[in-house]
Amino acid sequence: MFETAELGHALTKDEYNERVPRLREELLTIQRQLADAPFPVLILLNGVDGAGKGESANLLNEWFDARYLETHAFDAPSQDEAERPRYWRYWMKTPQRGTIGIYIGNWYTQPIISRVIGDANDEDLAKQLAHVRNFERMLADDGALIIKLWFHLSKREQKRRLKKLESNKETSWRVSKQDWKHFKHYDEFRIVSERALRDTSSGQSPWTIIEGTDARYRAVTLGEHILERIQEHLATHAERTKSAPPDPNVADPLTILDRVDLSKDIEKADYDHELERLQGRLNKLSRKVRKKGVSIVIVFEGWDAAGKGGAIRRMIRALDARQFRVIPIAAPTQEERAHHYLWRFWRHIPRPGRFTIYDRSWYGRVLVERVEGFAARAEWRRAYAEINDFEEQLVESGTVLVKFWLHLSPEEQLRRFKEREEIPYKQHKIGPEDYRNREKWNLYESAADDMVSQTSTEHAPWTLVSAESKQWARIQVLKTVCDAIEARLGK
Amino acid sequence: MFETAELGHALTKDEYNERVPRLREELLTIQRQLADAPFPVLILLNGVDGAGKGESANLLNEWFDARYLETHAFDAPSQDEAERPRYWRYWMKTPQRGTIGIYIGNWYTQPIISRVIGDANDEDLAKQLAHVRNFERMLADDGALIIKLWFHLSKREQKRRLKKLESNKETSWRVSKQDWKHFKHYDEFRIVSERALRDTSSGQSPWTIIEGTDARYRAVTLGEHILERIQEHLATHAERTKSAPPDPNVADPLTILDRVDLSKDIEKADYDHELERLQGRLNKLSRKVRKKGVSIVIVFEGWDAAGKGGAIRRMIRALDARQFRVIPIAAPTQEERAHHYLWRFWRHIPRPGRFTIYDRSWYGRVLVERVEGFAARAEWRRAYAEINDFEEQLVESGTVLVKFWLHLSPEEQLRRFKEREEIPYKQHKIGPEDYRNREKWNLYESAADDMVSQTSTEHAPWTLVSAESKQWARIQVLKTVCDAIEARLGK
Repeated sequence: MFETAELGHALTKDEYNERVPRLREELLTIQRQLADAPFPVLILLNGVDGAGKGESANLLNEWFDARYLETHAFDAPSQDEAERPRYWRYWMKTPQRGTIGIYIGNWYTQPIISRVIGDANDEDLAKQLAHVRNFERMLADDGALIIKLWFHLSKREQKRRLKKLESNKETSWRVSKQDWKHFKHYDEFRIVSERALRDTSSGQSPWTIIEGTDARYRAVTLGEHILERIQEHLATHAERTKSAPPDPNVADPLTILDRVDLSKDIEKADYDHELERLQGRLNKLSRKVRKKGVSIVIVFEGWDAAGKGGAIRRMIRALDARQFRVIPIAAPTQEERAHHYLWRFWRHIPRPGRFTIYDRSWYGRVLVERVEGFAARAEWRRAYAEINDFEEQLVESGTVLVKFWLHLSPEEQLRRFKEREEIPYKQHKIGPEDYRNREKWNLYESAADDMVSQTSTEHAPWTLVSAESKQWARIQVLKTVCDAIEARLGK
Repeated sequence: MFETAELGHALTKDEYNERVPRLREELLTIQRQLADAPFPVLILLNGVDGAGKGESANLLNEWFDARYLETHAFDAPSQDEAERPRYWRYWMKTPQRGTIGIYIGNWYTQPIISRVIGDANDEDLAKQLAHVRNFERMLADDGALIIKLWFHLSKREQKRRLKKLESNKETSWRVSKQDWKHFKHYDEFRIVSERALRDTSSGQSPWTIIEGTDARYRAVTLGEHILERIQEHLATHAERTKSAPPDPNVADPLTILDRVDLSKDIEKADYDHELERLQGRLNKLSRKVRKKGVSIVIVFEGWDAAGKGGAIRRMIRALDARQFRVIPIAAPTQEERAHHYLWRFWRHIPRPGRFTIYDRSWYGRVLVERVEGFAARAEWRRAYAEINDFEEQLVESGTVLVKFWLHLSPEEQLRRFKEREEIPYKQHKIGPEDYRNREKWNLYESAADDMVSQTSTEHAPWTLVSAESKQWARIQVLKTVCDAIEARLGK
């Protein structure tokens, strides 16, 4: 795989001087065109130590307009980063549409190093690479152009390079003990890297290997490749994102929601007693949660007027205000729209010992966005896998994840709408849109059915709650949350 | 000061039950009105341990719609926070317009504690309180409503409270050794707190003391006070923000910019040589900067076409791409507009060992916003003090701050505009607006003159650079940056 990058590619100074001025002009032009494009560009600089990753990043900052790109290097995670799922920091640094992000020391670095000199085995590596593939596919499916560049040096050339850097007083600081330690493992690095490249080269996001020996060749190849890829992506993105014909949106006659027993209810006296007991239990558990540094994510979905707000209010009464955050999902902000749709949920992932309660969530993609046609069919179809991957990462990092669908009958919903219209301080909660949504009840029901069947996983099961009685629903919600925390912590 | 909060205020259960339902309804109503208001609300909960700060936060989360407020508690700073100026974390958590932020353990906590049981003396406390006043005044001037509540308990009552909590198995966890340690210092806390309250009670943001003994009295007083303050603020904010008649904007016949010697130039050969030497020097210094963990902030202001971009490009060529970030100041995003105008600059303050280069900056407030009338006269006038305070905090935290004004003659500017129109890849840099701005040259010159005279402080002096020759300017910029870093680090 790397043989073609050991052929001794080089450019003379004249060749370089002839090609570079034009290249720079074109890079600036394409960057300006990119500014209005609906996708971001990620440039990954990986490869052998000393093959020019850092120099390439510097060069790109010089050739492009540095004001409209960001360079990220991920070393050891900071405290904020270490406290969250591994990909949180990568998500947070994804570039906005129309901009370029350059990544050195990225999501490939740690999987490769820990396989070669850490204690990861082949299976661990495979698992890590699967995460990489999922992550990149999500971004690419969303339109992102991911340019992955691997800078290569032969073993002999790397040794020569390190020695040369070391012998010069001006550059010796750049060679660390770790570089020599890595060099001793050159052959293993080569094998593992080759596997990583093979396993993560996709049609959407292929790897390009660049010979790193000659600085001029490397620079021009880098620039021309990036230029070409951006030009191509700009030329084809309209085609790629051409929307499919609207979804027929056929309603399913029988859904899993039909199995929810809506007759469930609870007596007022029992309710009062149970509520207090469960709030006490949750309060005690919340202190353990803080002590043990566990993160809790609770998701509420369900019909309008099913009582999500009321259930949340009963839950937070048991919690310390410093410990939780309720995130209501409204229209995304400008910054949120400029990122992948999952970005705005990733950013609120709680720190250890904290609760984040999402009042509606990432499932909007496969519910309202699907039914109302805000998401193209391809978009909501692939969202199931994207969501499963996201949730798997949450759970793998030790987070307790609980997902509720609050269910009720169309008749009960109508009754509550009418009630809202009559009580002054509830009138703001009801409008013509709510009635319009009712007309699509069957479509929403089908979408919810698909959602449950596609995303109720072993890691992150759905809890369908009968909300025909608000009291019953509140008790079930509290009980489920307590049980889930207890299952994670022990009693 | 606290005597009136030791009178034994209390409410019976009946009184409580009579007042609370109406209060809750009104709080929800006012919160909805607030959503469209152009200002945020900050509620500070401070006071004696055990007097009900935490309970009050919980109560407000229950009474208000918790989805539209945020509760923040500042304990020991996280790594990210500790690496930046002290107020960075408070700035980052200021609420957006239309929302409520609740603060426990806020900017008052550490100044008071370190005066009572730390090693701060009266002078240190005075300095801290001055920072508090500046911070709150900035927010209040921007429209924010700051409600500052102090929960008080008499010494006897605090002792009783701590003992009672301790004796109950359910609540004993809430009493720590630290609480008893603080209790031993009750009298000193009282004196220091009184001073803090006196020194920071302003007409805009007064303190309100609430007796914490009786939970019902405390709750109702809290809720009613907050309701009243928000109602009042909503009723008067239109009046308060009524814009003054437009600024006459008289141009000054003679400005400090006239003293810049525009005849300065440098020979091509000298330039090449100097540039290389200075880039080498900066590169070496940048490694020291990283090693020693110093933050560098560089600000570029100046006339259109004065060569800011070119000077920045020559500077970053000497730096590692992982180490710097260039922030171009364009139109603020939605999230940025929802905060105080300084918020969007605070958020990019670099971590230790990094450079942030602002291509235009917070000085826009007193330049373009002043001249074009985007900022009211009161706004840009007070901005000088706000900016000085911001910069003082930067420098106090150890940051190297360098500010450039690139100056040139109107004739040279015109020549460069024409040149831009003729070179294809520069055409995007020039438009009718650039010509329009030229007509206000004198007004901009006066604004720049005021800016320099108001904000060239000992901590953060301006460097006026003759940019009539681009080469000369680039050399001066590099030299000034190197000197400033060297002055901070030693050679």
